[in-house]
Amino acid sequence: MSAEIICVGTELLLGDILNSNAQFLAQQLAQLGIPHYFQTVVGDNPDRLKQVLAIACERSGVLIFTGGLGPTPDDLTHETLADFFGVPLVERPEILEDIAQKYAQRGRTMAPSNRKQALIPRGAEILPNPAGTAPGIIWQPRNGLSILTFPGVPGEMYGMWRETAVPYLKSQGWGQEIIYSRTLKFWGIAESTLAEKVSAFLNLPNPTVAPYASRGEVKLRLSARAGSEMEAIELITPVEKQLQQIAGLDYYGADDETLPVVVGRLLQNAGETLVVAESCTGGGLGQMLTEVAGSSNYFLGGVISYDNQVKISLLGVNSEDLDQFGAVSDTVAKQMAGGVRSRLVAGWGLSITGIAGPGGGSETKPVGLVYIGLAGSAGEVESFEYRFGPLRDRALIRHVSACAALDHLRRKLLSRQPLENFVP
Amino acid sequence: MSAEIICVGTELLLGDILNSNAQFLAQQLAQLGIPHYFQTVVGDNPDRLKQVLAIACERSGVLIFTGGLGPTPDDLTHETLADFFGVPLVERPEILEDIAQKYAQRGRTMAPSNRKQALIPRGAEILPNPAGTAPGIIWQPRNGLSILTFPGVPGEMYGMWRETAVPYLKSQGWGQEIIYSRTLKFWGIAESTLAEKVSAFLNLPNPTVAPYASRGEVKLRLSARAGSEMEAIELITPVEKQLQQIAGLDYYGADDETLPVVVGRLLQNAGETLVVAESCTGGGLGQMLTEVAGSSNYFLGGVISYDNQVKISLLGVNSEDLDQFGAVSDTVAKQMAGGVRSRLVAGWGLSITGIAGPGGGSETKPVGLVYIGLAGSAGEVESFEYRFGPLRDRALIRHVSACAALDHLRRKLLSRQPLENFVP
Repeated sequence: MSAEIICVGTELLLGDILNSNAQFLAQQLAQLGIPHYFQTVVGDNPDRLKQVLAIACERSGVLIFTGGLGPTPDDLTHETLADFFGVPLVERPEILEDIAQKYAQRGRTMAPSNRKQALIPRGAEILPNPAGTAPGIIWQPRNGLSILTFPGVPGEMYGMWRETAVPYLKSQGWGQEIIYSRTLKFWGIAESTLAEKVSAFLNLPNPTVAPYASRGEVKLRLSARAGSEMEAIELITPVEKQLQQIAGLDYYGADDETLPVVVGRLLQNAGETLVVAESCTGGGLGQMLTEVAGSSNYFLGGVISYDNQVKISLLGVNSEDLDQFGAVSDTVAKQMAGGVRSRLVAGWGLSITGIAGPGGGSETKPVGLVYIGLAGSAGEVESFEYRFGPLRDRALIRHVSACAALDHLRRKLLSRQPLENFVP
Repeated sequence: MSAEIICVGTELLLGDILNSNAQFLAQQLAQLGIPHYFQTVVGDNPDRLKQVLAIACERSGVLIFTGGLGPTPDDLTHETLADFFGVPLVERPEILEDIAQKYAQRGRTMAPSNRKQALIPRGAEILPNPAGTAPGIIWQPRNGLSILTFPGVPGEMYGMWRETAVPYLKSQGWGQEIIYSRTLKFWGIAESTLAEKVSAFLNLPNPTVAPYASRGEVKLRLSARAGSEMEAIELITPVEKQLQQIAGLDYYGADDETLPVVVGRLLQNAGETLVVAESCTGGGLGQMLTEVAGSSNYFLGGVISYDNQVKISLLGVNSEDLDQFGAVSDTVAKQMAGGVRSRLVAGWGLSITGIAGPGGGSETKPVGLVYIGLAGSAGEVESFEYRFGPLRDRALIRHVSACAALDHLRRKLLSRQPLENFVP
C-alpha cells in the first residue's frame, strides 16, 4: 500500500506558486518509510478532481490532499470528496466555534463565508488546524483507503501534519522502518572541492551521503534506513564525525543550525556581546541574527548606515577617509566595525559595506565587491574583501555578505578554543 | 486539446528537490494559452511511467516530460516511451557527434555511458539541447498526440523550451490565444472581507478574478484570455479599476510592486527621506526597504535598538519611561520614531517595538503585541497597536510587523494627496 499526494489549486496550474507542499510531504513520507509513487496537481474543478480521485483510489491506499479548503467559492475539496463517495456534507459545530474563537482573539468577527469551512463529509474526523481557520479531515471512506486533507497554506499544513497526521499514520502501522536524515552544513568551501575531499563517502550504501549546494552554502545529506531512529543515528554518527573532521572549520552545523544560531551559541557560551554596522545589507545581518529566539542575550543592536552621513554621525567614520577611499573600502569597513563596537559598548563589532547592485559598480569597484569588518574586544580590527559578482544578483549578494560576516565571527570565536571543545 | 506536464524523477518523490520545472512549464503554457489541467510526478520506474502515460494519452493532446534523459541506468524516459508506443530506439549519429563535441570543448572525452543519450524512438525529431548533453525529442507517435521531452536540469530545459518547443507549439496553432494575468495586492484587510466586498466579480468569465492570501497579504488575480496581450489588457483594465476603487486604501500595488517598492516611490516622488528604529524586527524593516535597488535615494538608514541601552543612547528614549511603560509600549514606540528621525535628520521616522516570541510574553503584553511609531516632518508622532498573536510564529510576527509599519507610512503619504493622483 502506498501514498499519493494530490495538490488542488488552479494557481499551481497557472504556475503562480511553486509546489513546496509536495516537496514537504514527499520528505515526510520518505521519513516515515511510506512508499510514494505518484503526485498529481489538479485545478479547483470538481469534475477533474473526481477523475483524479478515481485513478488514485485504484493505485494508492493513502491519499493526501492539499488545497481547496478555504472560505471562497472555488474551494471545493471537501465538497467534491463527499460527492465522489456519495455521502452528504455535515456542519460540525466544533469547527464553527473554533473559527469564531480565532476571529474573536484577533478582535474581529467571523465572516459568513467562513461557515462553509465547518462542512465536512459525514463520517470524517476533523484534522485540527491550530494556525488557521481551515481544518482538514482524516477519513476512511472505504476499507483500505485513508484520505487526509490539508489547506494549501504551507505554515498551517506543516503543523497539522506533524501534530495529527504523523501520529495517525503511525497508528496505522506506518513508520516502522524509517529513513532518518541529517544534513551537515558548510560555509567557505565550493561544492566540488568538498565533494572531492569526501569522495570516498559518496558511494556508501547506508547511510548514503549526497552533496547539495544553494545560495553559497554547501550541504552533505546523510540518510540512513533502519528499524528505529536510534539505530539510524548509530549508523550515521561515525560517518558524520569523519566528515566533520575532514572538513575542519568549513563545517559549521547540522540540520536546523544556521550560521546565526551557531554564532549566537558561541557568543552566549563565551558571555560576549555583538553589535553590527550595515551598509549594503541594510539591516539583513541584524535580521538574520534576531531570527534566533533569545538572541537578545548576546545581540545588542546596531546601526544601518545606508547613507554616508549616518556612517559619520553614528559610527564616527572619518569623512576624509570616506572621500579618499570611498564607502566601499577596507578602511571604512574597519571604522564601521570599530565605531559601532565602541559607541554601543559591546564585545564584538561586525560591519558590512559593499556594492549590491545592480547599479553603482565601476571598473575598480565592481558590483559584488564587499568588505567585512570585525572589531574585537582586544581592540583589534580586521577586514576581509570579497568579490561576489558578477553572476549573483542583488538579493544573493546581500544574503551571502551577511552569511560571510557571520562566518568570519564564527571562525574567530572558534579559533580561540581548541576544536575538540566545539560541540556543534 | 490540452497539455499535461509529467515530471519523471525519484528525487522528486523523495522530496530532495523542489519541482520548479513544473512551475516554469505551467507559466509558459498559460502564456501560450494552452489549457493545462493536470501535472503528474512519477519515479524512474518504467512500469509506473507507462501507467501514467496510458492515463495522460486519454485526457491530453500534448504531453510534456521532464527528467530521465541522463546517461545513468535509471534514466529511462525515451526507452519507456518507445516501448509504450511499440517502436524501436534508434541511435542518431548527429546526437553522438554533438555530445562528443561538447566533451571536447571542455577538454574531456565522452564517457561510454553517454552513448545511451543518442538513442531516441524511431520517428521522433531531436529537440536540441544547447547547454547540455541530453537532447529531448518532439514526437507525434499517433494522430492528435504530441510528446515533448526535456532533461530535468532547469537551466538546460529553459533554453530548449524557448528555442525549439515554443516555435513548434506555435506552428501547431497554439499561442494564438493567450492568457494574461495581473495580481492586485492588498494590505490591512482579511481575505474573506475582501472577497465579500468584491463578490460580484468572483464569477466573471473573462477576466476571471480569484482571491489568494499569504503572510498577511491578500491578492486578487485577474486572468484574461484573449487574442493578444493588448486585448487582454483591455479586458482587465476596467475590472482592475473597479476593484481598486472598491478596496480604496487597502489596495497598494500590482504584480511585482511590493510594499517597500510602493513606499519608496511615494517617498521619492515627494522628495522625502526615511529612517527606521527597529527593536523586535532586528533590521528586517531596513532589509525590506533596501531590497529595492535605488533605495538610497530616500532611505538613509536607522538604528537596530534591540537592547534597551541602545534605545537610550542612540535614540534618546527616556529611561524612566522604559521602566514605567516597558520597551513594548506606545510611549517608547513614539520616542523611538521621533528619536531616530531627529538624530539622523530625516523627513520620516518609523519604529517597531514588540514581542516576537516565542518567549517574553505576559498576560498584559502577550506574544504578538507590537507597537509601530511614525514621526513626521511636521513634528507629529503617532503610534499604532497590533496584536499579531497567538497563531503566528516569530518569523511571521516579525514579517507582518515590518509590512504593517510600511503600510502605515504608505497610508500617511497617500492621505496627503487626493487618491486620484495615485498612479500605482
